[in-house]
Amino acid sequence: MTVGADTPSDLEISRAARLLPITEIARRASIPDAALEPYGRYKAKVDPALLPESPARGRVVLVTAMSPTPAGEGKSTVTVGLADALQRAGENVMIALREPSLGPVLGMKGGATGGGYSQVVPMEDINLHFTGDFHAITAANNALAALVDNHIFQGNQLGLDPRRITIKRVMDMNDRALRDIVIGLGGPAQGVPRQDGFDITVASEVMAVFCLARNLSDLSDRLSRITVGYTYDRRPVTVADLGAQGAMTLLLRDAVKPNLVQTLAGTPALVHGGPFANIAHGCNSVIATATARRLAGVVVTEAGFGADLGAEKYLDIKARVADVAPAAVVVVATVRALKMHGGIPKSDLAAENLPALQAGTVNLHRHLENIRRFGINPVVAVNRFITDTEAELRWLIDWCAEEGVTAAVADVWAQGGGGPGGDDLAAAVLRALEQPSDFRFLYPDELPVAEKISTVAREIYGAADVEFSPPARRRLQEIEERGLEHLPVCMAKTPYSFTDDPTVLGAPAGFTLHVRDLIIKTGAGFVVALTGAVMTMPGLPRNPAALRMDVAADGTPSGLI
Amino acid sequence: MTVGADTPSDLEISRAARLLPITEIARRASIPDAALEPYGRYKAKVDPALLPESPARGRVVLVTAMSPTPAGEGKSTVTVGLADALQRAGENVMIALREPSLGPVLGMKGGATGGGYSQVVPMEDINLHFTGDFHAITAANNALAALVDNHIFQGNQLGLDPRRITIKRVMDMNDRALRDIVIGLGGPAQGVPRQDGFDITVASEVMAVFCLARNLSDLSDRLSRITVGYTYDRRPVTVADLGAQGAMTLLLRDAVKPNLVQTLAGTPALVHGGPFANIAHGCNSVIATATARRLAGVVVTEAGFGADLGAEKYLDIKARVADVAPAAVVVVATVRALKMHGGIPKSDLAAENLPALQAGTVNLHRHLENIRRFGINPVVAVNRFITDTEAELRWLIDWCAEEGVTAAVADVWAQGGGGPGGDDLAAAVLRALEQPSDFRFLYPDELPVAEKISTVAREIYGAADVEFSPPARRRLQEIEERGLEHLPVCMAKTPYSFTDDPTVLGAPAGFTLHVRDLIIKTGAGFVVALTGAVMTMPGLPRNPAALRMDVAADGTPSGLI
Repeated sequence: MTVGADTPSDLEISRAARLLPITEIARRASIPDAALEPYGRYKAKVDPALLPESPARGRVVLVTAMSPTPAGEGKSTVTVGLADALQRAGENVMIALREPSLGPVLGMKGGATGGGYSQVVPMEDINLHFTGDFHAITAANNALAALVDNHIFQGNQLGLDPRRITIKRVMDMNDRALRDIVIGLGGPAQGVPRQDGFDITVASEVMAVFCLARNLSDLSDRLSRITVGYTYDRRPVTVADLGAQGAMTLLLRDAVKPNLVQTLAGTPALVHGGPFANIAHGCNSVIATATARRLAGVVVTEAGFGADLGAEKYLDIKARVADVAPAAVVVVATVRALKMHGGIPKSDLAAENLPALQAGTVNLHRHLENIRRFGINPVVAVNRFITDTEAELRWLIDWCAEEGVTAAVADVWAQGGGGPGGDDLAAAVLRALEQPSDFRFLYPDELPVAEKISTVAREIYGAADVEFSPPARRRLQEIEERGLEHLPVCMAKTPYSFTDDPTVLGAPAGFTLHVRDLIIKTGAGFVVALTGAVMTMPGLPRNPAALRMDVAADGTPSGLI
Repeated sequence: MTVGADTPSDLEISRAARLLPITEIARRASIPDAALEPYGRYKAKVDPALLPESPARGRVVLVTAMSPTPAGEGKSTVTVGLADALQRAGENVMIALREPSLGPVLGMKGGATGGGYSQVVPMEDINLHFTGDFHAITAANNALAALVDNHIFQGNQLGLDPRRITIKRVMDMNDRALRDIVIGLGGPAQGVPRQDGFDITVASEVMAVFCLARNLSDLSDRLSRITVGYTYDRRPVTVADLGAQGAMTLLLRDAVKPNLVQTLAGTPALVHGGPFANIAHGCNSVIATATARRLAGVVVTEAGFGADLGAEKYLDIKARVADVAPAAVVVVATVRALKMHGGIPKSDLAAENLPALQAGTVNLHRHLENIRRFGINPVVAVNRFITDTEAELRWLIDWCAEEGVTAAVADVWAQGGGGPGGDDLAAAVLRALEQPSDFRFLYPDELPVAEKISTVAREIYGAADVEFSPPARRRLQEIEERGLEHLPVCMAKTPYSFTDDPTVLGAPAGFTLHVRDLIIKTGAGFVVALTGAVMTMPGLPRNPAALRMDVAADGTPSGLI
């Protein structure tokens, strides 16, 4: 793998590829014509209700990672490359991935569909509007917000306290100026003034609901249960109290059907839904994963951030809602990230450093132990970067062997999973799938919410103690009073550290986790525990990616990374 | 035509219809497979660049109306019914229509795709997200807004005055609480506070630009020229100064391709773009009309509001940008509207009243005269309503004959244009198309903007005088200084009256038109003259249509009217 002036960008690789018609991808995935709704030539929606009746047999491989670093570990790239390699090994495989959010694409990232020769394509379509799902979610959320403020304006029969509205309007955009705003100004004809703000669409509860719903009825039920705010006498008001769930579900009617695309190697991929991995659970939709399980023998999917956040939520939230528990979990690690957790600054990561690599394995070790807590044997995928030396890679593979964990180097960015770069990893995963697994949740439903948080903090993060702030304690009381103790918890914590301090790397222990507030998401069906600051509306950087984007007269795009 | 408890709703009629696959509609319209991008089974985008080279030969029939009343005149219904009837008469016909805005659909209207048996379908798709064009326009506009505020936040190199930003964020929603807001609150890390507001998407200049662009390059050029605000020393700042046109055009790359659907009778229709008819020009996209002219012998299209606004703008703005001048203009009139202009209140319109009908013809008479000023012979379509008596209809047709204007009763709501209800109108239009027309603009480019406004006011509205407010006079000075006198004018006036007072019906004369301000739209390429209050962000009514909408577990929608 070499990166130089001649290295093509992800967009160039995507556009140079010869894609198969989406009808051909559907045929390979045994999706009948009746269930396929093409969106152009290379994208389609799949209607699960029109697929042949078949049990969900596909074994799920969940791709997660050690604690990420700002350098990026390439989890999506490994997900795509592994699936391609499994297909190359003769497996009937399908990918289930999140859809990218437009805001970060215009801001910093350029794209989020894998990289190099391990991408889902067409990348420019998937990264921009795709099939409009996020726009539909934005519209459903904002229709609700408009109905809430209209209700207050038209007499406020429900007695909603304008200071205690808990939903926000959303936009799929990085727009810091909308974080804190005052709306309803201009006098009695324009509305009722109140303090408000916009979140990015992927941070909305509607997005979380969308991704946890099993079907259209379940979607409607969950939307109905979203708490929109509180009355003057502190009673919660839901979407059902307003009667808005019908219009919201109608606006999401087509969006809930998973989107079919392909990898560069022609592997079918369902790319659908994309909730934040901090204040939500960070996985693609339940409907996509469940549909993939009906269509393929192996389903490769991904969870956001590191295993302490993404995988924990996949296993304790998503797998509680639907039958999608993984048969194997792949933990992506990189030599660079391990050296950083071993105490080396980002600027020095290029030089070989075996002692730092060794020191950093404490982080990977804890993630592997954590996966075993769920009764699943982990597989380590070492995602190869250009700066890795042979000695480092060999040392790391040997370390994994001593740990008793299956491991393989993956060179899928440069070679693509369609080439041999993913063969070792595919073989390792297939071996793991042959071993028995005994999946169990970390905690039972009936454990009170405070103890659920404490369980995650101690067993997964290594904390000695959990401290709840006064607002968090008031919410715990509300949870008890409203009979919501059965809900699972969704931890909002920095992904960079097991603690709530992003600068504490490695495998810290004995610390106190600070829970500053809780958010009760009655629609999504979980309680968010906020530790540290959580940004729900990102801003644009000084030099936004958007200013480098363009499109030629013939429609050829440029500037997507 | 009878309306009763058993009368099916537009949604019921649409869903009961057996639609042809969109590939079959494309085949009938001679659209090759290569140029067709299906969006599901019954919608597709057409790429004009991939159509066979062919001159734009189709003769345009523009459907407009007398001054509308709150009762509704059924212009879209007549447009669809006329096209179906022309197809029935053996013509190779295509419709070009505006896309509905989601905001009013959720608010008051329920739908905007024709009515009864003269609809474009599938109505629930077209009325909800359709192919995502308005979402793309929203995203392009809001990306620009985020880039503007980010520019100010990141050091404001261009020296933009936060009090003089002229673009607003938009949402395709009726949300009165967003009309007047303050953004950028929360301290130095969150932005720079300023007074702002949201418009509905269809009121944005990006929408107007989208609908006037001839192709992707022209779109990029027009977007570049949009004025986003002024510097502290009052110099205009454009999208090109920020460098945002590339990303904006990229976000609109797919949206600019016209959308193909069908009528209930199987007539192909391009439904594309939908700017406001007050602060913009109120017609579907130039690209759709021009594409239809390449594909069909007759193109039936529509302009918003009455002929004084919609048709005047079609002829003086849209036809100046592209070769789309109509060969015939159909003026829709109703017995009910004529009686209302004859002085009868809405509650008494059901009773036969020939004197009121006669009195009301002054309104229709002026519209017919106005069309003749453009060198085109008008055709009157009397859109039949259930309360019309035979005597009233006969009297009106006779009156038209005395006026020397071709006229026909259209009964297309109840019968559909596929039945005989539109035959007379189709025959009348075909006769009009055989007559020579000699199209001319109302005013030349080189007339100064103030005199253009005066020309429209005197010749079309019947005003004696135009009064410019002090702010409007300052803008006239700016127009002169910036060298923009060549731009056409886009009048923002109440559609209900020839004056700027919506209560003055009939054919008033000798009045003064008050221009309270001008908006210079350098991207769209026109100057908006504001007369009276113009609402650019509607509100929801007390009982929003959204609260009656639902969708069944199998996806069947309800509550769209």
